[in-house]
Amino acid sequence: MMENPKAVVLLSGGLDSATVLAIAMDQGFEAHALTFRYGQRHWAEIEAARAVACAASAAEHRIVDIGPEAFKGSALTGDGDVPKGRSQAEMDAGAPVTYVPARNTIFLAYALGWAEVMGALDIFIGVNALDYSGYPDCRPEFLAAFQKMANLATKTAAEDGRKTTIHAPLIDLTKGRIIKRGLELGVDYGLTLSCYDPGPGAAPCGECDACRLRSGGFEEAGSTDPAIS
Amino acid sequence: MMENPKAVVLLSGGLDSATVLAIAMDQGFEAHALTFRYGQRHWAEIEAARAVACAASAAEHRIVDIGPEAFKGSALTGDGDVPKGRSQAEMDAGAPVTYVPARNTIFLAYALGWAEVMGALDIFIGVNALDYSGYPDCRPEFLAAFQKMANLATKTAAEDGRKTTIHAPLIDLTKGRIIKRGLELGVDYGLTLSCYDPGPGAAPCGECDACRLRSGGFEEAGSTDPAIS
Repeated sequence: MMENPKAVVLLSGGLDSATVLAIAMDQGFEAHALTFRYGQRHWAEIEAARAVACAASAAEHRIVDIGPEAFKGSALTGDGDVPKGRSQAEMDAGAPVTYVPARNTIFLAYALGWAEVMGALDIFIGVNALDYSGYPDCRPEFLAAFQKMANLATKTAAEDGRKTTIHAPLIDLTKGRIIKRGLELGVDYGLTLSCYDPGPGAAPCGECDACRLRSGGFEEAGSTDPAIS
Repeated sequence: MMENPKAVVLLSGGLDSATVLAIAMDQGFEAHALTFRYGQRHWAEIEAARAVACAASAAEHRIVDIGPEAFKGSALTGDGDVPKGRSQAEMDAGAPVTYVPARNTIFLAYALGWAEVMGALDIFIGVNALDYSGYPDCRPEFLAAFQKMANLATKTAAEDGRKTTIHAPLIDLTKGRIIKRGLELGVDYGLTLSCYDPGPGAAPCGECDACRLRSGGFEEAGSTDPAIS
């Protein structure tokens, strides 16, 4: 029996990465999920990632502590207020204060290290089109440049010539399409947490950018959000 | 009075990065030194970095804890024996077991994040020619690819068009030339630690790859190593 190839899947606990995990497994990869703890305001996000990995029967789930020191200056790490009630135009206008410097670069760098240790050549990340304007490190050209760099960085590539691929299967999908795809694959979105600023019991605030994108997505998908009771 | 531009300088506590710190400051940069703690076998390395940053009067020195989980599989993190007494031919033959997967990618990713927070556009790293064959992420083409990726990753580059430069001033220098340059700039090599496997009191073993490269370098420079008593 052929073994399934291994892949590292970046898993945040949010809706997008839960969908990516399901897609990677649907494509036949043995999924090794990777979550980062980096001074986020709420640990509920980590717990959501754990629940998602477990429900999906991922082969493994690692939670890596990364120092918060490099991330000072972003609202997501507790240095400012999370913006609420921004319009789509405002979201389109530029990177929000929730932007974390070099975040995807750091996440993918860790994924690359773990992939090499395991002999995996595939890394999955849940960036998508809606994030482009706000986050420079969600653009396809960034991902292509990272992949090129990765294939110069590792012993796997330098000595064995085996190339790493960065998969971003959501890159062109709207939030509604992402949700539709995830529902087809049996993702339980009730386990996911998108809110930047959840209340007690991890209840979403309903007003931050992430909550607004999410509720618009469920509307577009013609579905209801199981995380909203 | 013009302020000196800020730069992030990766500082390991070894000879090379101590020299790079002196070079960055000599070039007029306000140096912000960055050291990683990642399950190395010996904390003496961190203490050496601290002493070097202090002696050089760096503007700041941050020590960032990064999870060791991504680095499993390397002798440097305690999973195997450090190789001793390898010949130059053996060192040239391929990445040694002290190779840490994606290490420079992860280090530079953090440096990029910190640089962006500070508004710095310059990152210094002490890779050099002697490391090429053993470590793929010490090659100039890797550094060029990282720089290109970095300039797609950040808000600074995406919105303001200001480009980040990865400086590797030792890239073409032999160990002897590095030491000569450092001595000209007043680096106290007695504070640095190169050994992969130091004994009590951080005494170098004298036999690992790093010790052998270092002693050859002092010989080439026509100098004696102040760290050897």
